[in-house]
Amino acid sequence: MVGAAALRARLAGPVGCVTELPELRGPALSAWSELVFGGHDVVALPVAKKAEALAAAGVIPSRLVSALAAELVEAEQHLRPLPAATTQAEVARLLGADLEDFRERNRLDRVVVVNVATTEPIITPHPAHQDLAGLDAALAREHVLPPSALAAYASFRAGCSFVDFTPSTGARLPALAEAAAQHQSPYAGNDGKTGETLVKSVLAPMFAVRHLQVTSWSGLNVLGGGDGANLADPAANAAKVASKQRVLGDALGYEPEGTSRIDYVAEIGDFKTAWDLITFQGFLGTAMRMEFTWHGCDSALAAPLVLDLARLTAAAHHAGRSGPLPELGFFFKDPLGDGPSALAEQWAELVTFTKALHG
Amino acid sequence: MVGAAALRARLAGPVGCVTELPELRGPALSAWSELVFGGHDVVALPVAKKAEALAAAGVIPSRLVSALAAELVEAEQHLRPLPAATTQAEVARLLGADLEDFRERNRLDRVVVVNVATTEPIITPHPAHQDLAGLDAALAREHVLPPSALAAYASFRAGCSFVDFTPSTGARLPALAEAAAQHQSPYAGNDGKTGETLVKSVLAPMFAVRHLQVTSWSGLNVLGGGDGANLADPAANAAKVASKQRVLGDALGYEPEGTSRIDYVAEIGDFKTAWDLITFQGFLGTAMRMEFTWHGCDSALAAPLVLDLARLTAAAHHAGRSGPLPELGFFFKDPLGDGPSALAEQWAELVTFTKALHG
Amino acid sequence: MVGAAALRARLAGPVGCVTELPELRGPALSAWSELVFGGHDVVALPVAKKAEALAAAGVIPSRLVSALAAELVEAEQHLRPLPAATTQAEVARLLGADLEDFRERNRLDRVVVVNVATTEPIITPHPAHQDLAGLDAALAREHVLPPSALAAYASFRAGCSFVDFTPSTGARLPALAEAAAQHQSPYAGNDGKTGETLVKSVLAPMFAVRHLQVTSWSGLNVLGGGDGANLADPAANAAKVASKQRVLGDALGYEPEGTSRIDYVAEIGDFKTAWDLITFQGFLGTAMRMEFTWHGCDSALAAPLVLDLARLTAAAHHAGRSGPLPELGFFFKDPLGDGPSALAEQWAELVTFTKALHG
Amino acid sequence: MVGAAALRARLAGPVGCVTELPELRGPALSAWSELVFGGHDVVALPVAKKAEALAAAGVIPSRLVSALAAELVEAEQHLRPLPAATTQAEVARLLGADLEDFRERNRLDRVVVVNVATTEPIITPHPAHQDLAGLDAALAREHVLPPSALAAYASFRAGCSFVDFTPSTGARLPALAEAAAQHQSPYAGNDGKTGETLVKSVLAPMFAVRHLQVTSWSGLNVLGGGDGANLADPAANAAKVASKQRVLGDALGYEPEGTSRIDYVAEIGDFKTAWDLITFQGFLGTAMRMEFTWHGCDSALAAPLVLDLARLTAAAHHAGRSGPLPELGFFFKDPLGDGPSALAEQWAELVTFTKALHG
Repeated sequence: MVGAAALRARLAGPVGCVTELPELRGPALSAWSELVFGGHDVVALPVAKKAEALAAAGVIPSRLVSALAAELVEAEQHLRPLPAATTQAEVARLLGADLEDFRERNRLDRVVVVNVATTEPIITPHPAHQDLAGLDAALAREHVLPPSALAAYASFRAGCSFVDFTPSTGARLPALAEAAAQHQSPYAGNDGKTGETLVKSVLAPMFAVRHLQVTSWSGLNVLGGGDGANLADPAANAAKVASKQRVLGDALGYEPEGTSRIDYVAEIGDFKTAWDLITFQGFLGTAMRMEFTWHGCDSALAAPLVLDLARLTAAAHHAGRSGPLPELGFFFKDPLGDGPSALAEQWAELVTFTKALHG
Repeated sequence: MVGAAALRARLAGPVGCVTELPELRGPALSAWSELVFGGHDVVALPVAKKAEALAAAGVIPSRLVSALAAELVEAEQHLRPLPAATTQAEVARLLGADLEDFRERNRLDRVVVVNVATTEPIITPHPAHQDLAGLDAALAREHVLPPSALAAYASFRAGCSFVDFTPSTGARLPALAEAAAQHQSPYAGNDGKTGETLVKSVLAPMFAVRHLQVTSWSGLNVLGGGDGANLADPAANAAKVASKQRVLGDALGYEPEGTSRIDYVAEIGDFKTAWDLITFQGFLGTAMRMEFTWHGCDSALAAPLVLDLARLTAAAHHAGRSGPLPELGFFFKDPLGDGPSALAEQWAELVTFTKALHG
Repeated sequence: MVGAAALRARLAGPVGCVTELPELRGPALSAWSELVFGGHDVVALPVAKKAEALAAAGVIPSRLVSALAAELVEAEQHLRPLPAATTQAEVARLLGADLEDFRERNRLDRVVVVNVATTEPIITPHPAHQDLAGLDAALAREHVLPPSALAAYASFRAGCSFVDFTPSTGARLPALAEAAAQHQSPYAGNDGKTGETLVKSVLAPMFAVRHLQVTSWSGLNVLGGGDGANLADPAANAAKVASKQRVLGDALGYEPEGTSRIDYVAEIGDFKTAWDLITFQGFLGTAMRMEFTWHGCDSALAAPLVLDLARLTAAAHHAGRSGPLPELGFFFKDPLGDGPSALAEQWAELVTFTKALHG
Repeated sequence: MVGAAALRARLAGPVGCVTELPELRGPALSAWSELVFGGHDVVALPVAKKAEALAAAGVIPSRLVSALAAELVEAEQHLRPLPAATTQAEVARLLGADLEDFRERNRLDRVVVVNVATTEPIITPHPAHQDLAGLDAALAREHVLPPSALAAYASFRAGCSFVDFTPSTGARLPALAEAAAQHQSPYAGNDGKTGETLVKSVLAPMFAVRHLQVTSWSGLNVLGGGDGANLADPAANAAKVASKQRVLGDALGYEPEGTSRIDYVAEIGDFKTAWDLITFQGFLGTAMRMEFTWHGCDSALAAPLVLDLARLTAAAHHAGRSGPLPELGFFFKDPLGDGPSALAEQWAELVTFTKALHG
């Protein structure tokens, strides 16, 4: 919200916003001034206070927080706590009512719901996940959906599109695909590709096209912040780690040894350090190796991509697309569909997709 | 030579050979058994002895050197010292005679001359570099060409193609372009992209498509071996360093601060360690950074690419191509022509080019 | 054994042997030619074959294995499988008989038993660990000791000294201290400090004497080899990791956040790569950081220290020392006693101790 | 000045101040409230403005700059531009007058002059450097001293002690040693050991006591800020680099291959990144390696050491010491005298020295 307000007020440039590159810019995408932000927030801290905390942590400049104080107070009025109710059916109804109310009060053409909540554990399968009728029935009596999937369900029923920026379940259930189709809602995901996995998505194809044999790929992510605390939970960690290694098998055609680990160190705060060790063999079996360290601020990397995804998903919705948007794989660690996992190919797909939207 | 003999004898697989990937394999490329190696060698050490030294240094397996002893002795007979003469015109004539003799004795369809000599200093311009008639005249009385360019000149006149695996001048003079055209010889170059620059050619485009602002990119290459000793010479170093940073400006559209340095440390031997530090800015100016260390054996990385280039250049020659081959930019730090500098785009060009050769 | 034979034959210098430094050299230490090696080996592979495998993996030079072939065959005759029996009391008796037989046949003054077996899980306490009488009784009917402790027990009863180069229990039980005292045997340990922890033992004191506040210290050890496979077992891993972080609390006076992880990657073989990230604060709270990567061959680092420990422990035994030898803390991750954890102070203690042995 | 004011006002703790460690604290050292700061400053920017710039760069917290605004304005009145005059004799006289005036106005017991100006090129020898009479005579007619040495000369004549925190000449000339002796002034230096060299001073001894053979040690320092800009000058760079490698020969007893380079990258600002690659051999010649990256803020590392040195030098002066203070080698890259270069030994010397001052 701070970044979008800064862009609108021309207090910051669009560094990190992919949709502002010459290859993607164009008339199909909303102007920054046309975007309105709302949200269901589990945190009670007001937006302006949260912005101050981010400034103190070096994530955003203090001068922006001061300059945009009025906008941040204004933004607060579109935020609500998550609705509570006895059944998931009722929670979904309340979520949908909030979304419709938000759309009407702000006279919006379209609403894009983006899941930026923290990672959920991998779910246990349930028969109600398989079809929409079964799901509708089950929601009235049981808790069968994790929060991310319930949000997707409510979004589709309210005619909104849905983007999952996390490795959680989100829209990835047959019953929800049916819901999206029924309501003609597009959706995108999963798990924003911001740091270590972004680098993997260019290095793994590099080894592949050079016909070098990657023998192991091990990594350690040291991170603090709220996301880190959650990922210290082994169940959430498992979901995340699976998402992080997927690119290797896809790009290389085989799974090298090694794993990617996540360690929570509160002291590290919003800046994450990832170290990867890659061992590989060249001609006649010569053993070689590469290491990289990525020291990035996940918030600063993710925020502009969330803006990009909102613009692109809204434009796709406007253009009549519904169901999964595999062409947005560029943004994700674990993209929907069978698209390429190499960043360069994902970029080419994204350019083609966006040019078509511009017409 | 060891590697090609090992491939022919099926004692090693084609790891590192790009032309053995499914996307490039095909009938236009010579089989390993069809290749014959010769050379003008400045080193008096026999091939078999040099192979033993490489095995002792861990660059190639000892078992291959033993198993291929006969082939290496056989290879020796195609090697000659560089011819000596008073004028460069006469040296060129002798070089050409050697090439023709090699072609006839081995009943070869085509000869590809590959410059794998050490890096030359940047040359001083001379009027005779501008046109072939002037060059022909000058060579009879003056030393106007560095060795790499004289080799290109002799190669073209003998109807051979030419590949420059170094950052030296090679065929990059107007007079030599004229010679290539006259003799319908194709040529490729410059400077094989084996390690640090290979990584740059995927990371720089990654920053570009994510619209992240690279503020500095500094590197240090610590290397030993014969190449390292030569690069300790400031003049050669300057040529090499310029070649190594070129990809950044091309891929990013601007030149970040920083330079790439080369340090000679004899102890490091044939294995090179390169460290790069990249600082960049994300959304709202957040400062972030990335480091990588590449620990590679240049010989093991370069050798299969030399085989690839020989196959591809011969196939292009056979297909009637002459003059520069910009489609081989995938292999080079400083490619001929105005082609892309991003590895993924170079790969796409190479695939298209090679498919066309296969027909 | 290969190394000791090479030293004896003057085919290699004593690089890595601390007792060959001018500060420690002297008459109290056995000459290389006076040492005889035996062992209880769980691996059936003959020593000469194992040496060939190490040479193929680049751990020791092939030329030494060839040159010392006779010595390695000779060494084989002093190796035995671990004795098997129904009760631990009986196993201990057989182990002791082997040790006495080895001493007599080779007319040795003293035998030093060094545990270089793989890491054991942390043990469950048992009342019999508390006193020797109870232990003697329990061994006749129950399995109450892990293998490392049973070896220490047998060693002491046979009048041998004992060194634990692993983080296993070894002699660290009250009942075994009693046994050592009764038989006037000295012992040393635990867990040879060969790589990452060695570096920690100089960096942590550096931060301490500069009054810099270490806020986190996280590490990942990627290792293959037999030791790595065992450490992939969570129980063994826990023992090792505890041993690796201990130095930080000791040297800094507080425990920074973060942990040290161990990952098994078979491909890495005998060479280990450890990466550590240290974040720290300076004056006025400025946040800074340091990273290091250690790429070492544990066998090559450990072997000379095992020779050093054998020499020093034998000399201490000869000088009449019994019980724990805290002055050998220099060699260990988790030293016996309350000695210093900073390497420089451990070195000073070792020099004093050794000078006293020389008289 | 900001830090000292913060310590005095108890707005910050003494992290990074070595003299606040329990081993060094004591009655001989001035309290923070007893220190008064003055200076000859080549920069016209007021202290308060400079402090704001440092806060914006993340070097010091903004809250301190606001809270200490009055103190920083007050500090300004003790700053002067460097005096200008035709002869160096006259400049020295004016410098001395300033120092005496500063001492009297503030009723100080002692004044310690600390050179924190940027690095000077290595000087050309001159006969007047050899004795004080010759120097006195030469200064009246020629420019024979670099600024750092002229400052030392003036300091001694004004009865002040002198600390050189840079690799410049400072007091290291026979004529100046004579001046120090005549005026009974102590002096210390050279070149504050804040980052990469600090790490070297613990790692090099670690390799030494483990009897590991360091075969190469190469480094690259990437730094911005005012100091970086000056070090881009090859002459200053040479002085600095020599100072940075000295510890290796001292600690190891031999000079490994490799060099330490300094690159100026304005973008890096006050934070410096140094990368070092160390290759070493272990038992039987096994090749191993270590890398480290140090990412530190030189100002935050240097400032508390400057306070420490002022306290310690004043206390030594008070205790009647004059001439060089080799016991302060702990603080310097290139210490005066023949003291140890290993940090742990320097620390032991410093503790002994300081305890003696406390009496």
